Amino acid sequence: MTSNLPVTPADVRDAATRIAGVAHRTPVLRSRTLDGLVGAEVFLKCENFQRVGAFKFRGAYNAVSRLSDEQLAKGVAAYSSGNHAQAVALAARELGSTAVILMPEDTPQPKLDATAGYGAEIITYDRYTGDRVAIGEALAAERGLTLIPPYEHPHIIAGQGTAALELLEEVGELDALVVPVGGGGLIAGSALAAKGTQERIRVVGVEPETGDDTKRSLAAGTRVAVPVSRTIADGQAADIPGELTFSINRHLVDEIALVSDYDIRAAMRLAFERLKIVVEPSGASALASLLARRLTRVPPRIGVIVSGGNVAPQRFAELLAG
Amino acid sequence: MTSNLPVTPADVRDAATRIAGVAHRTPVLRSRTLDGLVGAEVFLKCENFQRVGAFKFRGAYNAVSRLSDEQLAKGVAAYSSGNHAQAVALAARELGSTAVILMPEDTPQPKLDATAGYGAEIITYDRYTGDRVAIGEALAAERGLTLIPPYEHPHIIAGQGTAALELLEEVGELDALVVPVGGGGLIAGSALAAKGTQERIRVVGVEPETGDDTKRSLAAGTRVAVPVSRTIADGQAADIPGELTFSINRHLVDEIALVSDYDIRAAMRLAFERLKIVVEPSGASALASLLARRLTRVPPRIGVIVSGGNVAPQRFAELLAG
Repeated sequence: MTSNLPVTPADVRDAATRIAGVAHRTPVLRSRTLDGLVGAEVFLKCENFQRVGAFKFRGAYNAVSRLSDEQLAKGVAAYSSGNHAQAVALAARELGSTAVILMPEDTPQPKLDATAGYGAEIITYDRYTGDRVAIGEALAAERGLTLIPPYEHPHIIAGQGTAALELLEEVGELDALVVPVGGGGLIAGSALAAKGTQERIRVVGVEPETGDDTKRSLAAGTRVAVPVSRTIADGQAADIPGELTFSINRHLVDEIALVSDYDIRAAMRLAFERLKIVVEPSGASALASLLARRLTRVPPRIGVIVSGGNVAPQRFAELLAG
Repeated sequence: MTSNLPVTPADVRDAATRIAGVAHRTPVLRSRTLDGLVGAEVFLKCENFQRVGAFKFRGAYNAVSRLSDEQLAKGVAAYSSGNHAQAVALAARELGSTAVILMPEDTPQPKLDATAGYGAEIITYDRYTGDRVAIGEALAAERGLTLIPPYEHPHIIAGQGTAALELLEEVGELDALVVPVGGGGLIAGSALAAKGTQERIRVVGVEPETGDDTKRSLAAGTRVAVPVSRTIADGQAADIPGELTFSINRHLVDEIALVSDYDIRAAMRLAFERLKIVVEPSGASALASLLARRLTRVPPRIGVIVSGGNVAPQRFAELLAG
């Protein structure tokens, strides 16, 4: 099933070797309360405990670690207002390179500070008038930087798959693996890890109901764009699947479940009150799909990727109160 | 050093066997950010992930599991407005017994609900006019219930020590173990586990600066009462050390560090923002002592008990904003 794909389970295993000792091997949490609510044994792979607070470090480190000495010396670049920015900044620092990150000028100060804190140079642009792709490419060309994309790259996809690989190694056979979907890199890597290890496992992606581009694309058999999603899950606001990620996901993803902002907030609250973990909206969507019963079936043993935990305390309080 | 004490390291190991498979073996979290801030390798034993959200389940289960069939049939009782209430309720349910919990009538509804949710009968009393000890003892006598004290019992102390035992088994040699101090049960058990395993380990207790009864008592060589503490760390508001717990702690505790409410809030914020975990004020005090540099020395490898995570979202937001 995974042969003839542009990225393979072997690439994910290879990435796992690359990131060993650099990325955290994040814990798998269990909760009897959660099991009771879902009606299944649920295994939470907690990437909110990953370095930079999200799975993104796995792919970024894998990708940057493949660059030549010359490329590392010239430096890398990325455009992102989210977790990918910090992931590339930290990966570059860990590998003795430098990073230039292009961020919208209205990015919240804590995110700018965090990215700068990992040693990156930050260049801001006006998100309403500037074209980040054009600016990024011009900058990369001018300075000889290597652009590290957020999901459209085999090394990124393979790196993101290492979280699922660790989960399956730790807990053994699962009936389903439930994964948040944004651009599709995390679920593509996760699906490769899962189907490469356990042939019968069901891979379920979760999108915000207002941004169901991957669900529509899978139904259509080709990439479909949707209007830019209005959702609290800012890490999942992609309007069209990636070309590379979709070429994998169309073969390996069995189902897409949709969740509302309300479902996500309820999952964040449960995570806080019962699991004692901080999960950002995008990071909670897979858990939300189980709690809100958005899957077509609930098999006995389910793995869930909790993908990130970067949310400011004030924003967190607002979301839980809302 | 641990011979001739009323509870021994062997009792802690025995408790560990008792609770195996019933209590969670909680994860040990690491953070490079935290290590950098403290200037040491820090190992966080996360009892906020324990069943009922706090270490208290360990001691309660160990104690209730020692009762005779007749005692279990008659039921157990406890007075507590905090985590001990839920711990005894759940331990009783797990062991096929019943629990009556005496709680102040102004206990927040979520805590009443949580305790009732574990199947306990709740009896409320007026904390300003009622004497909970007298009411509890009368109730126990009347119904033939066995009273499960929060810390003054060898089985409670031994049970609480199992968290430290697991930590030491998992991470090996530590130079210091830092533990919150309330009535003294957690630190007594932790000290037994630590000194029984690693002779040279330093055991540091942490109290709120407004409720330094154990620090004063250790200095005086005898139990000293202080005015009831005003602190956000409600689990540490004891005004005098327990007789039994102090008889252990006076021999095994090397130092008491004091923290302010400000220190605790800063630690809760760091735990939220960087570690992505929810920690209640009492649960954060040991971590706070490291971050605020309240220890006389900072050795290379330090274990910390993060003792609980039961705090409502609204209260949490207020504390982080304050």
